[in-house]
Amino acid sequence: MPFRATPHAYTDPERAAVYRAIYERRDMRHFLPDALAPEVLTRLLNAAHHAPSVGFMQPWRFIRITRPELRTALHALVEQERIATARALAAREEEFMKLKVEGLLECAEVLVAALCDQREQHIFGRRTLPEMDVASLACALQNMWLAARAEGIGMGWVSLFEVAALKTLLNMPEGSHPLAIVCLGHVPAFYDKPMLEQQQWAERQVLDDLIFENSWI
Amino acid sequence: MPFRATPHAYTDPERAAVYRAIYERRDMRHFLPDALAPEVLTRLLNAAHHAPSVGFMQPWRFIRITRPELRTALHALVEQERIATARALAAREEEFMKLKVEGLLECAEVLVAALCDQREQHIFGRRTLPEMDVASLACALQNMWLAARAEGIGMGWVSLFEVAALKTLLNMPEGSHPLAIVCLGHVPAFYDKPMLEQQQWAERQVLDDLIFENSWI
Repeated sequence: MPFRATPHAYTDPERAAVYRAIYERRDMRHFLPDALAPEVLTRLLNAAHHAPSVGFMQPWRFIRITRPELRTALHALVEQERIATARALAAREEEFMKLKVEGLLECAEVLVAALCDQREQHIFGRRTLPEMDVASLACALQNMWLAARAEGIGMGWVSLFEVAALKTLLNMPEGSHPLAIVCLGHVPAFYDKPMLEQQQWAERQVLDDLIFENSWI
Repeated sequence: MPFRATPHAYTDPERAAVYRAIYERRDMRHFLPDALAPEVLTRLLNAAHHAPSVGFMQPWRFIRITRPELRTALHALVEQERIATARALAAREEEFMKLKVEGLLECAEVLVAALCDQREQHIFGRRTLPEMDVASLACALQNMWLAARAEGIGMGWVSLFEVAALKTLLNMPEGSHPLAIVCLGHVPAFYDKPMLEQQQWAERQVLDDLIFENSWI
């Protein structure tokens, strides 16, 4: 059966580069102290801003943390939630506490990525799936992640924090919602595999087990 | 101020290819009828499967729709929700009804992307942000989207459907949750700009307006 060739495909090296970024991107927790060039940060934010969003709502907002005491306060929030998570994990508490779950004090740049307020005005594509705003912000962060990998810059997404406490800390409006503390910066090396796979927290599943045809059950 | 060069950066052409995919990716609604080569579909699913996921939970599941009557039924669900959305939009009802919001009957492949059941067992990174599962699936779909763009293949994410009705149609287990009807296939052309921008549904926001420093307000 012959398949149509498409004139819209990228060249082989371009295609390989896109897949390379997809396969080599890692959630980083180990950073070097060197500063991030401002033009790189701008390119990463622009990459995020060119993500898809439901009904073109562009719900993403970014708070850049430049005050050291704020960074320390964010770190304390994460540390508090790390302990609460460990307790909630019960049987795996000790194992969890050995994992490095953030690189907040070491990385060059810290951003908080959040959803804007007044999202209830956006109904297109969200009437039955209101969480499409979360999905849009996640697409933006994935763009940033892949662009960062191509730039040779590490990115870590930290979701260990109490939402209300973080909102208070950054004077976020009532209807807004933080989804990520993003760490960005130079790294000593990118992990060969996801860190949680390396440390045997979990294994990569077999793709075929995740795919069904016409019916799940 | 000198900034450190990183040995981990991709070559300039590789970096450009990653940004090219990020900037040229579009949410497609216009498709050609030609079939998609199976190896391309496999590459796209593998790209999705190599997305980040909170606590490495890999919550994504994909249901490939190959029965024509199921595709027709999905299309009917979307059409029903399109009308319900138009009514909910009130003042913009007429304008919305003129938009093409899906290409379900024309595209080569239809997948339903969903979250697995029993997600409550996954606490790592989700104790205070349970929606991180949605974020992980969205990252997977963004990987697929960028890979598809590099392959010259169009992808559309349709979120206009009643969740319960779709779950019944595909025999999805109780705790699972569909997030996208994904259309994949050859396209006549990629839109120059997001279709909703071209059709003046909404404008791209100015990036600087979306970035704050240390405090939102």
